[in-house]
Amino acid sequence: MVELSTTDRTRVRRVPERAAHDPAALYAVLDDGLICHVGFVHDGTPVVIPTSYGRDGDVLYLHGSTGSRMMRHLTTGAPVCVTVTLLDGLVLARSVMHHSMNYRSAVVFGAARPVTDADERWRAFEAIVDHLVPGRWTDARHPNRREAAATAIVALDLTEASVKLRSGPPVDDEIDLDAGTWAGVLPVTTTVGAPLADDHTPAGVAAPAYAVDYRRPVHSNGNSG
Amino acid sequence: MVELSTTDRTRVRRVPERAAHDPAALYAVLDDGLICHVGFVHDGTPVVIPTSYGRDGDVLYLHGSTGSRMMRHLTTGAPVCVTVTLLDGLVLARSVMHHSMNYRSAVVFGAARPVTDADERWRAFEAIVDHLVPGRWTDARHPNRREAAATAIVALDLTEASVKLRSGPPVDDEIDLDAGTWAGVLPVTTTVGAPLADDHTPAGVAAPAYAVDYRRPVHSNGNSG
Repeated sequence: MVELSTTDRTRVRRVPERAAHDPAALYAVLDDGLICHVGFVHDGTPVVIPTSYGRDGDVLYLHGSTGSRMMRHLTTGAPVCVTVTLLDGLVLARSVMHHSMNYRSAVVFGAARPVTDADERWRAFEAIVDHLVPGRWTDARHPNRREAAATAIVALDLTEASVKLRSGPPVDDEIDLDAGTWAGVLPVTTTVGAPLADDHTPAGVAAPAYAVDYRRPVHSNGNSG
Repeated sequence: MVELSTTDRTRVRRVPERAAHDPAALYAVLDDGLICHVGFVHDGTPVVIPTSYGRDGDVLYLHGSTGSRMMRHLTTGAPVCVTVTLLDGLVLARSVMHHSMNYRSAVVFGAARPVTDADERWRAFEAIVDHLVPGRWTDARHPNRREAAATAIVALDLTEASVKLRSGPPVDDEIDLDAGTWAGVLPVTTTVGAPLADDHTPAGVAAPAYAVDYRRPVHSNGNSG
């Protein structure tokens, strides 16, 4: 299997047995996530902004207003870090020190590339819209020329990334096991609920199947793993 | 009401009507969130790492192994950005351009201060543990001298921050309202489920009330707002 490059910044130093290095593990985290946190450096200061994203093969797409600080930064090709975190459980150990979380996280490093090719921009729009709500792109009105011109899109190659996973019960020190304390996991779940139509939706227009029966490519969260 | 300072980096430029400037709005986001994303600059590159946190009044606490890259960075007083994002809904408009999300987010800037005072360190430990599971601190074994020495704790004053909120239905262009397209919101909810005891918990030890009836100070998510 192809491995993601392990560079100085993607080598997992802390608890390296939680690291995964194959693209499939990376794509699974990205495909299950809804939003990412984008980090960039502005005047020497780190800035972390939540935003939506899309994936097409080994490329991650981000978009935003051409006037936004984040997109103005990213379109220059400045270094960027994109992190996606899925929280799966709160891990309650017998000792405070071994409290933890079950999670799946991906940290992607690189320099964003402005997407200017018309076909790639269209595929990126579709990837971003259908990432949040698979199927929505075909139902919504697509960007017109003016709207598209106001939207910056950047691509980030998924080549330098680290993936970390923790699952399963707490791992306590032997000496604490007989303390009589309750220990275990509180599972954390993110769910998408029943669609709420807005006031302009005609009474006869039913919510589409992809909204009523919302599905994502959900991978195992491994609380019992 | 006291206002958070509006500096060049906390001024909300895009959609400024979504900004909130009072500490109560900031604390509400921080108290509802489970994890934060910490941004720092390492060798000129932005790095964004998910981690837990705690709040005590107007101070945010982060902790980690003294050997972790993040904590080694933060304890130097380097600039840091801590972002907490609560995703409340997927907003499906009639046009792709007006697709959005309902969310509450807080972006805090500053320089972290290493916490060395023994009393403050203890309060910070408690704030971090009880942030994730209110009530757990009193039940778990507290850090011993060796464990405490291996843990770095930093404080970040909650003085320079921006809060952004979006709630309610999509806002479409007038021209799209008669398209006959279904539009509305898919609510997103994060829930903590029934506790799963680990294999070392004796059969007679019931899960504590704070785990069975898990509660956070949950504020309105405003999907209907």
